[in-house]
Amino acid sequence: MWVRNAWYVAAWRNELAAGQIMARTIMHEPLVLYRKVNGAVVTLEDRCCHRLAPLSKGRLEQDDLRCMYHGLKFAADGRCIEIPGQPVIPPNAMVRTYPVAESGAWIWVWMGDAAAADPALIPYTTSEDDPDWHIRTGCLDYAANYQLINDNLLDLSHLSYAHEKTLGRGAPAWANQRPRVTRLDRGLRFQRWFTNHRASHYMRAHGEVLELWHSYDFLVPGLFLQRPAWYPLGSAVRANHTEPTEPPIFVRLDDQAVTPVTERTSRYYYAVGLRSRDGSAAMAEEMFRFTETAFHEDKGIIEAQQQVIDLAPERRMMSTSLDAGPTQFRRLVDELIARETARPRHLEGAKQPA
Amino acid sequence: MWVRNAWYVAAWRNELAAGQIMARTIMHEPLVLYRKVNGAVVTLEDRCCHRLAPLSKGRLEQDDLRCMYHGLKFAADGRCIEIPGQPVIPPNAMVRTYPVAESGAWIWVWMGDAAAADPALIPYTTSEDDPDWHIRTGCLDYAANYQLINDNLLDLSHLSYAHEKTLGRGAPAWANQRPRVTRLDRGLRFQRWFTNHRASHYMRAHGEVLELWHSYDFLVPGLFLQRPAWYPLGSAVRANHTEPTEPPIFVRLDDQAVTPVTERTSRYYYAVGLRSRDGSAAMAEEMFRFTETAFHEDKGIIEAQQQVIDLAPERRMMSTSLDAGPTQFRRLVDELIARETARPRHLEGAKQPA
Amino acid sequence: MWVRNAWYVAAWRNELAAGQIMARTIMHEPLVLYRKVNGAVVTLEDRCCHRLAPLSKGRLEQDDLRCMYHGLKFAADGRCIEIPGQPVIPPNAMVRTYPVAESGAWIWVWMGDAAAADPALIPYTTSEDDPDWHIRTGCLDYAANYQLINDNLLDLSHLSYAHEKTLGRGAPAWANQRPRVTRLDRGLRFQRWFTNHRASHYMRAHGEVLELWHSYDFLVPGLFLQRPAWYPLGSAVRANHTEPTEPPIFVRLDDQAVTPVTERTSRYYYAVGLRSRDGSAAMAEEMFRFTETAFHEDKGIIEAQQQVIDLAPERRMMSTSLDAGPTQFRRLVDELIARETARPRHLEGAKQPA
Repeated sequence: MWVRNAWYVAAWRNELAAGQIMARTIMHEPLVLYRKVNGAVVTLEDRCCHRLAPLSKGRLEQDDLRCMYHGLKFAADGRCIEIPGQPVIPPNAMVRTYPVAESGAWIWVWMGDAAAADPALIPYTTSEDDPDWHIRTGCLDYAANYQLINDNLLDLSHLSYAHEKTLGRGAPAWANQRPRVTRLDRGLRFQRWFTNHRASHYMRAHGEVLELWHSYDFLVPGLFLQRPAWYPLGSAVRANHTEPTEPPIFVRLDDQAVTPVTERTSRYYYAVGLRSRDGSAAMAEEMFRFTETAFHEDKGIIEAQQQVIDLAPERRMMSTSLDAGPTQFRRLVDELIARETARPRHLEGAKQPA
Repeated sequence: MWVRNAWYVAAWRNELAAGQIMARTIMHEPLVLYRKVNGAVVTLEDRCCHRLAPLSKGRLEQDDLRCMYHGLKFAADGRCIEIPGQPVIPPNAMVRTYPVAESGAWIWVWMGDAAAADPALIPYTTSEDDPDWHIRTGCLDYAANYQLINDNLLDLSHLSYAHEKTLGRGAPAWANQRPRVTRLDRGLRFQRWFTNHRASHYMRAHGEVLELWHSYDFLVPGLFLQRPAWYPLGSAVRANHTEPTEPPIFVRLDDQAVTPVTERTSRYYYAVGLRSRDGSAAMAEEMFRFTETAFHEDKGIIEAQQQVIDLAPERRMMSTSLDAGPTQFRRLVDELIARETARPRHLEGAKQPA
Repeated sequence: MWVRNAWYVAAWRNELAAGQIMARTIMHEPLVLYRKVNGAVVTLEDRCCHRLAPLSKGRLEQDDLRCMYHGLKFAADGRCIEIPGQPVIPPNAMVRTYPVAESGAWIWVWMGDAAAADPALIPYTTSEDDPDWHIRTGCLDYAANYQLINDNLLDLSHLSYAHEKTLGRGAPAWANQRPRVTRLDRGLRFQRWFTNHRASHYMRAHGEVLELWHSYDFLVPGLFLQRPAWYPLGSAVRANHTEPTEPPIFVRLDDQAVTPVTERTSRYYYAVGLRSRDGSAAMAEEMFRFTETAFHEDKGIIEAQQQVIDLAPERRMMSTSLDAGPTQFRRLVDELIARETARPRHLEGAKQPA
């Protein structure tokens, strides 16, 4: 079950060059993306209405896409505008079009009711050309349901175990000190102070031990957005253990998106960076490599978890107090799905061919 | 759904040498083929009635086939004639036998009611040793339902798109000029004149531009048989735009057969050639290579089409005026299946072990 | 369908070293095995009760196993004894534990009702360090249901066909002379004399032709245990064609176990050997290599058989007089399964988490 009325990350913006045709599958739906002459991204159903061949094997003709099986041509609004050898084009000759937006470093596609597509629902993420940040980006394909990856990101207690030699190394006991969890409109916010955090070598100039204000948002459908900030000792107390107002010593950036491909496959996009005032691009590269090693640790345990689940899909998970995040977020997702399902049928599918 | 009462191409005749045991799967049924001492082809169910092991892993003993798991021996008529260590052989100890014929370059197997197997239903195809023709043959395995390949061959408008750089190169606009479609007893005939056809280099001696009489039959279960013939300019008018009676300048040969293996896999057999009076064996080889490149283009788009279909099998195709061939042929297949299904049960399965 | 109340071979004892964590799947259930500090083997469900991650990717801490996803720690009795950051551990925080035993060369796991686990049901098999025997061991993974492998071992008539060039070479006609089959409490015993057995080269010193007392037991769930013994000519008559009491010339050892992994995969464990008084370790090695070649012949035909079955799973096997063993054993298995299923529900699952 998926939330349909949400913006899903389909690609990095710089993956889609002018003239390029890109195929993506999101939530079992085949999509084709390309840019119009003016640069605007178009997202169509990647399935010709005629014989169901993928348009992504087609030919871009200005702003239109021609299926290269039998030559039907589609405009950017999904309407078929040419059927070779047939003068009249029936009104149902069309493919679904998806609302699409470019924001931050990503291309976002709205998978649900087009009338409900609100660009204001796209959260702020940092773009790759932002001079204030050094950023490196990557991507991993998972053989696992996307919810298992979301769960992972909603409970960072696993850092001390799954990442004991990487992200969890020398870090505070993530499991022992719980974050404050706040419900947002379409997500959750996790916040806490670590007051005894061993500094990484690239922030060592500020001291061996620092305080870390760790705050991140996890948003529907699967967005992990954090800007961990390090402070001198004593800052947490000065901030009364709530959100600090003093300027931080060092700020890290993590923008991540989990996109469901099929029931058993997902794609995970991630950007890692630091403020350009805090260090060099080479330092961002080093942080990225280190973090990506940890992401392969996640992939190892999560894909193994999926395999265990597949052996006996009826087995239930047992929630612990660690699972405030996963549990609340799954509940939020269920609410959103229930709300979508309850919607009157006449509002649905208006943009879809019969 | 498949037509059962039809001859299916199982192999090239020259693939099955004396003494050889060949395994084939057609319509989910395992078959084993071999030649008797007198050369006649035998086709049995490739599944020992004892423990269901494949007979194709067995041993040929004169005209009989012995299962090399536990030693049961079967005669060419499917009867078990030896059970090691057991003197009495029960009457139900048998495997199904399939009517089989050699005709043209192929071995044909009848997959339905043996009583209805009429060799006259096998269409004429050219044999590889016919001195009037230079022929080259090939084979492709598809990860796609056979009907999608049939559709492809029933609507050649795709030549201008799927094969824009090969078969469709410089060719007439296949989509714009529609063939006359005639219903045959078990197929369809497609005919048309192209009066402005750029000559290939091997017929250039006859002029830069020629007229092409393009006629082919597509027959149940999936046979594509054509002898395109080139004529001098003016021939179409002289023939009143119907079938020509004058001798052609150049004749090409295409004998093709699509055989369903499973619901999602198929095998495609094809012969390409030209009249030996029109050119050399090397020319046939060149035509074959060129054509086979195009067949890989078909394979690419059809297998991609199958994958798109598998993402949402409930999606319907939308017929256009291009689809007279695919639509009429699918209707013909449905009719034949309905007729088979309506047959009284007591006529069915008589040749099958209980 | 599987007998649950039975000891299944999970591994060779020497595969599980101190400090090692071993993952196994038996009958679709994921298991993790390790040794306690005192050497005793522990078998737990390989599925953390928290998020269903495999414990086999965890960390051994003395006698306990910690899940390295979120850090839950389990004692050897399956109870969760630590949830990081959570002081109270709910009583249902546990994983299933399986009765386990070491006997002969194997580790045995009881897959059913723990209360019914009786070590006396483990048959005697020879251990690898027994000075009376030279033994070599191996293992094959099958892409086939385990019952097909059992069938194979329950009817040795296939030696003359599937193994005509290896085990059946020059051997008596296994199909023509049937064994006496005796029902045991949880298996079958097969016994016969071969009075005209061509001696293998390593027993040739005793004569070109010998007599073979061939006796083996096949036990639930899939254990093949034999000690074929060769005798001088005349011995069968002296023993009145029943079990001999004279000392044999040469004794071979075959201990084999078939373990179901999933419906379509199995693991086959085998030991081959001879009495150390009858020959050298090199001779055991030679016998092992020869026998393993034959086991690959079995694997070839059985996996092909499985594929044929999968094409039409509704097809029934046809029993012949060869099939006394397979038929009686399948009946025995069905009886045991029926008896388990009929057991009052309140006796079941007592050791399982809700």
